[in-house]
Amino acid sequence: MAYKEQYPSALLTEAVEAISSLPGVGRRSALRLALHLLKQPAENVHHFTSAINDLRDGVCYCQRCRMISDDEICAICADKTRDQRTICVVESVRDVMSIEATGQYHGVYHVLGGIISPIAGVGPSDLTIGQLTERVNALENPQTAEVILALSGDVEGETTAFYIYRQIEASGIKVSSLARGLGFGDDLEYADSLTLGRSITNRQIFKP
Amino acid sequence: MAYKEQYPSALLTEAVEAISSLPGVGRRSALRLALHLLKQPAENVHHFTSAINDLRDGVCYCQRCRMISDDEICAICADKTRDQRTICVVESVRDVMSIEATGQYHGVYHVLGGIISPIAGVGPSDLTIGQLTERVNALENPQTAEVILALSGDVEGETTAFYIYRQIEASGIKVSSLARGLGFGDDLEYADSLTLGRSITNRQIFKP
Repeated sequence: MAYKEQYPSALLTEAVEAISSLPGVGRRSALRLALHLLKQPAENVHHFTSAINDLRDGVCYCQRCRMISDDEICAICADKTRDQRTICVVESVRDVMSIEATGQYHGVYHVLGGIISPIAGVGPSDLTIGQLTERVNALENPQTAEVILALSGDVEGETTAFYIYRQIEASGIKVSSLARGLGFGDDLEYADSLTLGRSITNRQIFKP
Repeated sequence: MAYKEQYPSALLTEAVEAISSLPGVGRRSALRLALHLLKQPAENVHHFTSAINDLRDGVCYCQRCRMISDDEICAICADKTRDQRTICVVESVRDVMSIEATGQYHGVYHVLGGIISPIAGVGPSDLTIGQLTERVNALENPQTAEVILALSGDVEGETTAFYIYRQIEASGIKVSSLARGLGFGDDLEYADSLTLGRSITNRQIFKP
């Protein structure tokens, strides 16, 4: 409070408060950004704030996979060359972008919009699990289709994966999850013992 | 460009572009912030952008010292208990806040709004040096008043200090600059030789 009162102007105080509400931005960085914005031409600042308002007000989500999209069906779901019978289930939009950046995946996605977390008060009904179940049930011959559970390896991720598995197992669809083990280039010496243990248990045939 | 095209929506691309134009914010952080803002209630996002627009459009500067202010004359210049005959000349608004935070200064300020830098194309006329000269010339008995040049110790700071000194020396006002030397708690071993050399040359009487 004492620090707050040192700002020389109420408008500056308001702006610093607003900017420091962003994750990972402290009051010092917020002040630096506010003073930077003050030095810019007014039209640049308005362009900046409009881009953010436009995103928040105009954003659409794909009707099928809940990915951010400019259309009702996103570019990935609309792409006929992609395998529409392999559905990769992820927590967030960012995960889709990470997997797309690998260039290794040619199926489609389903964005849950979060993860089951009793502590954060997030239950299955807050996520798009119902829509995933419908998608799976609408597939012809689900036995030849696949759901990949690409969730984090922590307790919440495992809980969510297990919950989804129970919802869709009756359909007979193949359910897989991401391979876990040492990262490429990882040093054995610095690997945590859980990861190293799993890497040994799930060892693979050496293919030189 | 390849990376840019991976964003799933034009609105998201625009927002990430805008946010990453801030100093010290890369494209990855910008994406993280954009996705964070997407998850917030719309009114929070509008409050955020309004605070920034209000600052840019509504900001005022003190007529006397050019500090950010809500009024024509800032709180420091309007404070009768402060020594109005000691003027501390600083580069930016932030420097005023840093000096105020020390609680050690009871005079007033003059914000230059930058520093003379031929490389950045900033000349004396881009700064508020003319207004400073007018302030000094308007003082009664300038011989008993003081200007403190609180500028950075680099070439540009020294150049600016020298330029200002030449502008105001005729008035007979006392001109001082910040003490330079080892910081409190600094280790001799790690001090640069220029600073250490000046610390020895400008040594002070020991007052236990």
